[in-house]
Formats: sequence, structure tokens, C-alpha cells
Amino acid sequence: MLKELKEKVFRANIELVKHGLVIYTWGNVSGFDPKERLVVIKPSGLDYEAMQSDDMVVVDLDGNVVEGELRPSSDTPTHLALYRAFPAIGGVVHTHSTYATAWAQAGVDIPNIGTTHADSFYGDIPCTRDMTEAEIKGDYELETGNVIVERLKGTNPMDTPGVLVKNHGPFVWGKTPGDAVHNAVVMEQVAKMAVIALSINPNLTMNPHLIEKHYARKHGPNAYYGQKMY
Amino acid sequence: MLKELKEKVFRANIELVKHGLVIYTWGNVSGFDPKERLVVIKPSGLDYEAMQSDDMVVVDLDGNVVEGELRPSSDTPTHLALYRAFPAIGGVVHTHSTYATAWAQAGVDIPNIGTTHADSFYGDIPCTRDMTEAEIKGDYELETGNVIVERLKGTNPMDTPGVLVKNHGPFVWGKTPGDAVHNAVVMEQVAKMAVIALSINPNLTMNPHLIEKHYARKHGPNAYYGQKMY
Amino acid sequence: MLKELKEKVFRANIELVKHGLVIYTWGNVSGFDPKERLVVIKPSGLDYEAMQSDDMVVVDLDGNVVEGELRPSSDTPTHLALYRAFPAIGGVVHTHSTYATAWAQAGVDIPNIGTTHADSFYGDIPCTRDMTEAEIKGDYELETGNVIVERLKGTNPMDTPGVLVKNHGPFVWGKTPGDAVHNAVVMEQVAKMAVIALSINPNLTMNPHLIEKHYARKHGPNAYYGQKMY
Amino acid sequence: MLKELKEKVFRANIELVKHGLVIYTWGNVSGFDPKERLVVIKPSGLDYEAMQSDDMVVVDLDGNVVEGELRPSSDTPTHLALYRAFPAIGGVVHTHSTYATAWAQAGVDIPNIGTTHADSFYGDIPCTRDMTEAEIKGDYELETGNVIVERLKGTNPMDTPGVLVKNHGPFVWGKTPGDAVHNAVVMEQVAKMAVIALSINPNLTMNPHLIEKHYARKHGPNAYYGQKMY
Repeated sequence: MLKELKEKVFRANIELVKHGLVIYTWGNVSGFDPKERLVVIKPSGLDYEAMQSDDMVVVDLDGNVVEGELRPSSDTPTHLALYRAFPAIGGVVHTHSTYATAWAQAGVDIPNIGTTHADSFYGDIPCTRDMTEAEIKGDYELETGNVIVERLKGTNPMDTPGVLVKNHGPFVWGKTPGDAVHNAVVMEQVAKMAVIALSINPNLTMNPHLIEKHYARKHGPNAYYGQKMY
Repeated sequence: MLKELKEKVFRANIELVKHGLVIYTWGNVSGFDPKERLVVIKPSGLDYEAMQSDDMVVVDLDGNVVEGELRPSSDTPTHLALYRAFPAIGGVVHTHSTYATAWAQAGVDIPNIGTTHADSFYGDIPCTRDMTEAEIKGDYELETGNVIVERLKGTNPMDTPGVLVKNHGPFVWGKTPGDAVHNAVVMEQVAKMAVIALSINPNLTMNPHLIEKHYARKHGPNAYYGQKMY
Repeated sequence: MLKELKEKVFRANIELVKHGLVIYTWGNVSGFDPKERLVVIKPSGLDYEAMQSDDMVVVDLDGNVVEGELRPSSDTPTHLALYRAFPAIGGVVHTHSTYATAWAQAGVDIPNIGTTHADSFYGDIPCTRDMTEAEIKGDYELETGNVIVERLKGTNPMDTPGVLVKNHGPFVWGKTPGDAVHNAVVMEQVAKMAVIALSINPNLTMNPHLIEKHYARKHGPNAYYGQKMY
Repeated sequence: MLKELKEKVFRANIELVKHGLVIYTWGNVSGFDPKERLVVIKPSGLDYEAMQSDDMVVVDLDGNVVEGELRPSSDTPTHLALYRAFPAIGGVVHTHSTYATAWAQAGVDIPNIGTTHADSFYGDIPCTRDMTEAEIKGDYELETGNVIVERLKGTNPMDTPGVLVKNHGPFVWGKTPGDAVHNAVVMEQVAKMAVIALSINPNLTMNPHLIEKHYARKHGPNAYYGQKMY
């Protein structure tokens, strides 16, 4: 069932480790099949080294396990909230990658101060508000998804495909599981460069026209980066 | 004698190197056998590359060598003080890992400012007081253990399984030698993220309800992370 | 056609990855053949792992593709502007390497504060001015080259073989593609060391005589570093 | 000639690369044979990958090449000044390792603020004064050695076996070439930890009794670290 998507989700999880975004079991990737309206997600707390494609768990958008021997990631309700709210996304990644998590702990949006950022994220990468005691003591992982959705209200989630959950870490998405991993790698890199840049010059400035240009160069209707036009 | 524990302690020492917490011979892991009331510990100053499982030294809780050709780690009296004071622990790790050691040199507790921290350490990771001249000139390694025990008075050592010895470095523990290594890796990672987060926002805030939630999610009676409930 | 230069450009691209200056497809190297007045450059957005020497694209100094199935790097017009303006250069590198990019985002010249810098870059590594809206909305990549050339006016481009494009990243050059990669690696390293040095002592001083000495030792008419005199 | 020492010096050079202290050809190790009063040193500007044990150059204490096809390191006169001034040393290392070089560029002594430092360096790691124009324009590499010797006046060079040359980088020594490399690795590590510690707490304090204890534990007449007493 969903063999191809399971393989993609499995490989995307491995990519996280390869890019140094994850140690131990601190990360998870899921993928969405829009036809079947099912989600494939990494099992909870399973070692990456032991993990196989077939271990991926299939759940429906309400969180019912449809296939799989193992328990799905404890963050599954957060992933599902994102798929329900953002129909355009096909993959979600959660990590505790060092620099993005540090920004989340600082409770500060990652400012868009360079073309590396603008190539993949149109705006600043936003940080969510503090969750309330009721949200945390209630259906915590679902509520985590809800504060993300609340924070992105009025924006196109594909323009800035990621968010920082305050005092927790990044959730990132994309058209596919692999695309979501790519965006998670970019977020970690721009998170690192922003810390360094601001330590050099706390009063640095960004050129807004560069943001328009670079985002459009890769993502707009007249994109001309890469080999896609051939 | 204690062949299985020796193997676990040996592998835990190798894990320290693999995770980048140790260069040269700057680290040691021990494990405790509660039935025999004996401790297995790495030999002093031995190269990790040359080391074998059988090189591990067996000592009793008073520090007498019970088995082994080599001299036990010079930090053995510190390990023993912890096993005597904290009956629940089964493994102890000492490293000079970069960021945790930097916090120890700074003489500052590592604040709990994120879920990565709260997943493994309930409170701030405490730093010990300055040792007195008498303590340092006396039975130094034993006294190091004593200031750790003093610092943890009134707390459950399994809730916050590690400490910074001022101007020295971290001592970390757990239910097993492998568990202690896991906690040492987590401590190094949260030590790094806290430095970065505070450089972004010195006035950052932590949500106390997140600490309760995340620690309980992994360690409380109703833990639901991982595959343990299956 | 230009088989040898293609091989050099290909290998120089791979060197960027090996030295950790590039992730994904975020970098490009080109080389110039002064006899044929042709440029060999990496294709746009192609995976480094899949790339082969024969994939390199040949363009003339006006940007016309002379040979190659793939589209040349989207930064080609910037490279060409540099070759047209600086006849002595035989290779150009563009990366988003972490520390050099952070200085570019900060909008600050990298100060020459050590012999590591002076061994390869005579002066501070300059940062360009903000580009205007017209430049960005116009022939953007060409204009990027133009602001670089403008910034270097009155200097010898071989003395300080690189520049920071504000809010973007480094462009670096040299006598050959390999030499340009070498200078890009040096720039990243001195960018990192300068951040750290200034965090230790914001009021540090440089000895101007050291700059003269070290640059001349490697590059002057009486250079005596290496095996060249044998 | 001096085959064994050549092998040791060669291996020590390779160790520098393995420990990440050197990129390209930015480092050199030498060793001293007290019986023959000859020095074996790395050739200038030679690639580490191509280098072999037999490429090492033999020079006398006045800098005359006694054996070897290649030109000795351009830093040879600095090494020789150290061997002439400090009879106890058997190996010298020079690198541009990131953090130690940053301290040298900052022009600040690396303070002894932890046991990692005290285990190998008794005091602060000193930084030399600015060299004069005459010294730099004169016999520069010899004068570099002279300012190092001047800076260490009145101290035992084996107690604090290394120095920062201002705006340049570290020179480190030891009983053997391998011992000098070990001290260079330690210096880089303590240089890094000191930057981080001071960023956490600029007013941190060191316990002077810890310095006495740790240095004596490894180096004093009653040393009890390692397996040496067996």
C-alpha cells in the first residue's frame, strides 16, 4: 500500500540524518497522497539505522492507523493539522536542528537578510506564540499544529514553507517529502548565517528588491533557475 | 567476570568518540552491577583505538580493583561517589565535550529553554560551587563527587541526570552506561543550542508548561513516546 | 572542445563540495581560455553527484552558448562581466559558503587582521553597495557583475581576488579555476576567523607591515614560499 | 639519515590534517635529534597528500640543509630559534588552526579557565607583542622566533608549551613531534572553549587550586594519570 510514497518518506528521513539535521530519533518526515487522502509517516522513536521503508506507518487525516505494525511518530497530529489546513503541501518535516531550534528557543523570527533565504523562503521565517496551559495539557500535538496554522493565517504556506514552534523547533514543508527536507536544510543554513551576520552587524539592512527577484527567479511563473525549461 | 557489563561499558566509551564528545583519552564511562555491587570502568589514559572490552577494570564501591590488569580511570572515585549516593543509576559518563565544558568554565547552569532539553533533563543543568583548597589538595576526585552530590541535594538525580563541575566539565548518568552516553550527547547539544539562543535573544522566555509536558511525555507514568507501549 | 579546461572546471566544482563550501547546487565555477576567448561553466541547478566533465557548458564572452546540451549557470552573466573587466583572471567561483555569506549579509568588508588573510588577499575583502531597483529588475546577473567591477575600481583584482556581493555572497577569482577555488576556501576560513577574533577583542589591531611582508612572501617578485624556486 | 625521526615528523604532519588543524599546506612540524643536533622539518608548500616520509628535510641549527631534495618550510628559522633557546623541546608545530589563530588575531592571551587547559598548559597561553617594521623587513622568520623567546623569558617553556604570534597564529612544542601535535590539538580545543565560555559569562572566574592540581596530576613528580606507574 502506497509503496512508492513509503519509499520517498523513508529516504527523506535518511536524508535528514545525512545532512546533520537529526541525531538519535529526533526528527520525522511524512508524505501525503492526495488521491487516497492518506499520510505516510515515520514510526515513533525508531532508530534510523534499523529503519526500513516498510516500517513507515499509514494513517488517515483523522489519525487512524490504516496500515503498519508500529506506532506512528508522536508528532503525527501536528503533521495532520498541517495537511488538513494547507492542501498544497505533500511533505512535512520536523527536526531539532541546531540553529533553527536556537531561533525557536529565542522566540524570534528568522529575518530574511540574504538571497540564500529568499531563494526558498519569501518572508521571515515566523515563530509561533507561547502555547497556553490548556493547549499544552490538552491535545498537545494537535494544538501545536493549530498554533502553526494560526501563525500562518493570511499567508500562502508555499511562499514561506516553514515555521518555528516557540521553545521547541522547526516544522517545514514542501510539495513532496524530499522538497520538505530540502527546505529544512535551507532553513538550518540560513538560521546559522543569520546568527553570524547579526553578530557582525546588528544593524544590517536587507534590500527588499533582492527578495522579490530571488524568490521569483526560482519559484515565479518566469523562473529561470535550473534545467526545468529544457 | 561481568562480561556483559564490560561489553556495554566498552561500547559506551566508543559511542562517546563516535558522537564527537571525546578526543584523545578525555572521557570515561562506567557501569554498575547492582547485584554484585561492582563497578566496571575504563582504564586510565588508554587510547580508544587500542582499547578492548577485556581492558575494562572492575572495582568495588570502595575503589578496590577486583579484576583487571590496567589502572582504572583517575576519575574513578568521582564515579563511585555517585553510585554510592544515587542508588538508581547504572551508568556514569565524564567528558570534556566542547559546549558543556564551556558552560562549566563559565560557572553557569544551563537553563532549560526548550523541549530538546526538557525531553531528557527536567530542570536547569546545575553547576557546582568552587571547590575549596582543602578539597582539591585532599582526596580530589572523591571530593569532586562530594560537591556533585551536595549540589543535587533535595532533587531526584534521575530527573536531571547530569551536572557541570565548575571549571572542569560535565558528569552525566543514566539507568545504564548507554543511557548515560545518550544523556551526555543531549547535554552537549542543548549546551550548544542555549549559547546560540541566548546570543540571539538574551531576554528569551521559557514556557514552564512545556517542561512538564515534554518530560512527562517521555519519562512520566503515562509516557507515550517511542514503541514502548506495544 | 576545450576538453582540458572542462576537466579543470569540473574538478574545481567538485573541490567546492569537498571543502564544505557548497550544499545542493549552490555554487558554480567557470574557467577562461584566453586564446579562444571562451568560458567553460557549470550547468544551472545540476546535482554535483550526477555531474560529469562533459556536462560543462561553453559560452562566449557575450553569453552565447557555443557548446553543451545543458543551460549554463544562471550566474553566467556575472562571471562574464568579470572576465571582460579583469583580463588577468582565468577562473571565477561563486558560493554561498557560510561565513563569507554572513559577512555579505552583514554588509561589512572582511578586515585583513592576520597573515592567513594577507597570504592570499592583500587588502580587506570589499562588500558591494546595495543594488538599485532598476539594476535588480533589469539584467540582474549582469548588473551584479557591474557592481563588483565598480567596487574594485582603482585596485588590482589579482591583489584582492574576491568580493562580497551585499546580502548575497562571495565571488572569488584567480589565475585558474583551481586557484579561484583555493581563494574561495581561504576567504571562507578568514571570514570565520575574523568573526571569532572580533568577538574576543572588538578593538583588535593589525600590524600593517605584516600585510606587506606576507603578501610579498607568496606573491611578490621575490616570493620564497613553496618549491617554486627549485 | 635520521630515518626514524623523519617518519615521526612525517606522521605528526599527517596528524595535524587528521585533527582538522590544517588545510592545504598551512602547517608544519619539525623534530629535533639532540645527539646529532639536527632538525627534521616538512618541506615548504608541499601537498600533504603527496608527501612522503623521505621528503622531510634535514637542517642543522644554523639552517643549512644537510639532506633533502626539497626546500625546507619557510618557517624553518622560527623553529630553529626555538630549538636553540629551549633545549628541552624535541618537536615544534606551527598551524593556522581556526580558534587559536583567532585569539592570535585578537592579540589576547588565552586564559586558563578550565582543567582541560590546565592538564596541558600551566598558565595562560601568551600572545607576543607587535613586531617592529625593522624585524618584519629584516630576517622575518628568525625575528618571529626571537619575539617568541622574548615573550617566554622567565618561564619554563615545558610548563606552557605554546604561544600565539600576534596576527599570525600558534607555535606549539613538546618533548617529541607527536607531543607537540598533541599540545596543538589541545590548544585549539581550549581556544574554542574559552571563546564560548566568555560569551556565556564575561566575568567568569577560575579556581587557582585547580590549575595546580591538574597540571601536577599529569606532569608533576607524583603524576598519577594514565598507565605510566605500572
